[in-house]
Amino acid sequence: MSVPPPVASAGASPGASPPFEIGLLGHGTVGSAFADLLEARADAIVPITGLRPRLCGVLTRSRGDFAEILERSQLVVELIGGLEPAREYVLTAMRAGRHVITANKQLLSRHGEELWATAREHGVQLRFEASVAGVVPVIRVLQETLAGADVRRIHGIVNGTTNFVLGEMARSGAGYAEAVAEAQRLGYAEADPAEDVDGRDAAAKMAILARLAFDTPVHLDQVRYEGIERITPDELEYARELGLGLKLIGTAERVGEGLSVRVHPAFLYAGHPLASVAGPFNAVTVESDAITEITMSGPGAGGPQTASAVLGDVVSAMIPPACTPAPSQRLAIVDDVESAFYLHLEVADRPGVLGQVAQVLGMQGISVKSVVQKGLGGNARLVMVVHPALESRFYAACALIERLDFLRAAPRAIRVIEEQFG
Amino acid sequence: MSVPPPVASAGASPGASPPFEIGLLGHGTVGSAFADLLEARADAIVPITGLRPRLCGVLTRSRGDFAEILERSQLVVELIGGLEPAREYVLTAMRAGRHVITANKQLLSRHGEELWATAREHGVQLRFEASVAGVVPVIRVLQETLAGADVRRIHGIVNGTTNFVLGEMARSGAGYAEAVAEAQRLGYAEADPAEDVDGRDAAAKMAILARLAFDTPVHLDQVRYEGIERITPDELEYARELGLGLKLIGTAERVGEGLSVRVHPAFLYAGHPLASVAGPFNAVTVESDAITEITMSGPGAGGPQTASAVLGDVVSAMIPPACTPAPSQRLAIVDDVESAFYLHLEVADRPGVLGQVAQVLGMQGISVKSVVQKGLGGNARLVMVVHPALESRFYAACALIERLDFLRAAPRAIRVIEEQFG
Repeated sequence: MSVPPPVASAGASPGASPPFEIGLLGHGTVGSAFADLLEARADAIVPITGLRPRLCGVLTRSRGDFAEILERSQLVVELIGGLEPAREYVLTAMRAGRHVITANKQLLSRHGEELWATAREHGVQLRFEASVAGVVPVIRVLQETLAGADVRRIHGIVNGTTNFVLGEMARSGAGYAEAVAEAQRLGYAEADPAEDVDGRDAAAKMAILARLAFDTPVHLDQVRYEGIERITPDELEYARELGLGLKLIGTAERVGEGLSVRVHPAFLYAGHPLASVAGPFNAVTVESDAITEITMSGPGAGGPQTASAVLGDVVSAMIPPACTPAPSQRLAIVDDVESAFYLHLEVADRPGVLGQVAQVLGMQGISVKSVVQKGLGGNARLVMVVHPALESRFYAACALIERLDFLRAAPRAIRVIEEQFG
Repeated sequence: MSVPPPVASAGASPGASPPFEIGLLGHGTVGSAFADLLEARADAIVPITGLRPRLCGVLTRSRGDFAEILERSQLVVELIGGLEPAREYVLTAMRAGRHVITANKQLLSRHGEELWATAREHGVQLRFEASVAGVVPVIRVLQETLAGADVRRIHGIVNGTTNFVLGEMARSGAGYAEAVAEAQRLGYAEADPAEDVDGRDAAAKMAILARLAFDTPVHLDQVRYEGIERITPDELEYARELGLGLKLIGTAERVGEGLSVRVHPAFLYAGHPLASVAGPFNAVTVESDAITEITMSGPGAGGPQTASAVLGDVVSAMIPPACTPAPSQRLAIVDDVESAFYLHLEVADRPGVLGQVAQVLGMQGISVKSVVQKGLGGNARLVMVVHPALESRFYAACALIERLDFLRAAPRAIRVIEEQFG
């Protein structure tokens, strides 16, 4: 069941080059884009690798036989998605000595350690650049460029649907449902966008990034997530007055001796490197004391873009081995972290209201950074940003504030990410 | 003269790991930062590579012997800079079977083909992430992630000194000399900043990026460059009214069957991914039909940052081989390209002036996109942006405009980079 790999000779002429056989599992949007791209770029890959890549078989729901395709292949590209049979195919391929390229974030965020261990055990490569942020090279940068770095924090916009929806709400003043409908019309949201808008998709991607950056096992179930379903246009409008823009942000960061991995809507100041990421684009910022920070951005989805990431992995696999080392750490996953907050209160318009709110916040050790107040008939709207505090203390303060007799509606809170540099 | 490489076993415990011997040439800002970082991160590198990296010798002007250090090393890090003896050391090390990591943009932009050919011939790695944009992973992304992509264009802010100076002029209204002095005070400019401000430093980096992206030999001498020495604060002020920000931009792009590589000041619209790159940061945008574009940004200089890029290369070299393939193309280098322009004219304030200017431009096939006009006593200032046209035709129009009798000063022109998306 093993095909002897031909000897690669870089610089060989296209005509004389031995083939490199690729088995493709899945032929949906990304799968068919990959098949097209592979054919279009095969000539260009020959001088880089000395080999001519070609498809030796395609498995879809209705045609192809996995065992036969595996037998003929030197490398397997898994673009089926979902957990089974993708997991079984990937494990079987690696046990048979095949390199595997996958874009399957669900699989990696749930069964990553099993898959990486199998890759190490059988001396094959398991590459997955396309699983997070499409062609934005965040996986490779974490595994290679920053292999020797001590990462402190990752912030990411890793879901293009929500970034488009929030941008549309801010731009046009549209409500959430209207912006989602526009995203669907433009092909930036699925017919059922639940996994995108509730934060689950981003959570899977952050689990993978956290695993690589902090060299510690992270399972999807350990990632806290909140979505954007309850964001209202007036929050975006008030935030603009405070110089803030709203994004769905994934965060993975060292907290003491532990690790926090989470996804939630958050405001960014205009100077933050992720603040200008517009439309359906993705972006990731990696911070480390030695490097300050690097930011990568680009299209996070789309057939041809994701297929390009897969092809980059295929080319790398045709040249040299890379490996995901066994985790050398087991950091505790931290739930309660510090954050600055935007706090929106509808209150009765009478003297002493701001003072009482500030007092409750102060009792929890929370100080106010900036406030916008607006009268609305007999009521008033208080919108403020508070300095970073433990989330548990901030939410405790909110619970106390909610009980104040002048409150007209439940407090609304959204995290604010502070500028790091500037 | 060869040290047998110990067998790497990923996941081995730190104590039991065989050493990996590194010879360090140069002990200036980056060299000493690299030595510190290597010591600090050696423990973390063991589980990734199965080997413990350590310095086996350091060569400075006053101490160390190259031949002895080479004899003991498995990999050589060249951080001397300059052409000789750096070139001789790098060639000798590779001929002796040693991998080489270098940050030397001057060397690569002048002698790259000789060096890459030697690396291929002797089956060793020559890695150089730190030569362009410091720890921003543009080299690796071009060589690996985008190895299979058909790159159309690269735009880069690859010199932090000029980006800081232009930002300072825009922010504070300071003149050029004053902003350079501020950059020097903050350590963002050298005592003699000539190579940075005149564009030569950026030109060397663009030669390297163009070589990798377009797989064609590019020598520093083939890169046209202009610096920022003649930029004035009022240009920045007028540009702001047009929604433009000024950057020193390096460009490498396919033009028909040829390639244009150049560095010059250029205005960007606020929506361009490079427009928000502030201070001494570097950033590079890579465009390709399949991927749309990806942008990477981060600190382009600084000892610890550059040392991190070198260390990422060292870690990669400790794991698997990579190679720069022989160029498969020899694209012609194109000099005359299309560009949009900002045009600043000091004119007599009388009827028909704008009409005559527009007529001259029209005769060269150039149309006006936007105009700002301001009276100044008997004179007026016309500031306009024109749509893209061949540079030769635009400059021909400028020469004709300069001869119009109402002109009060030579026309001033700066290129404008159009928004690609959005």
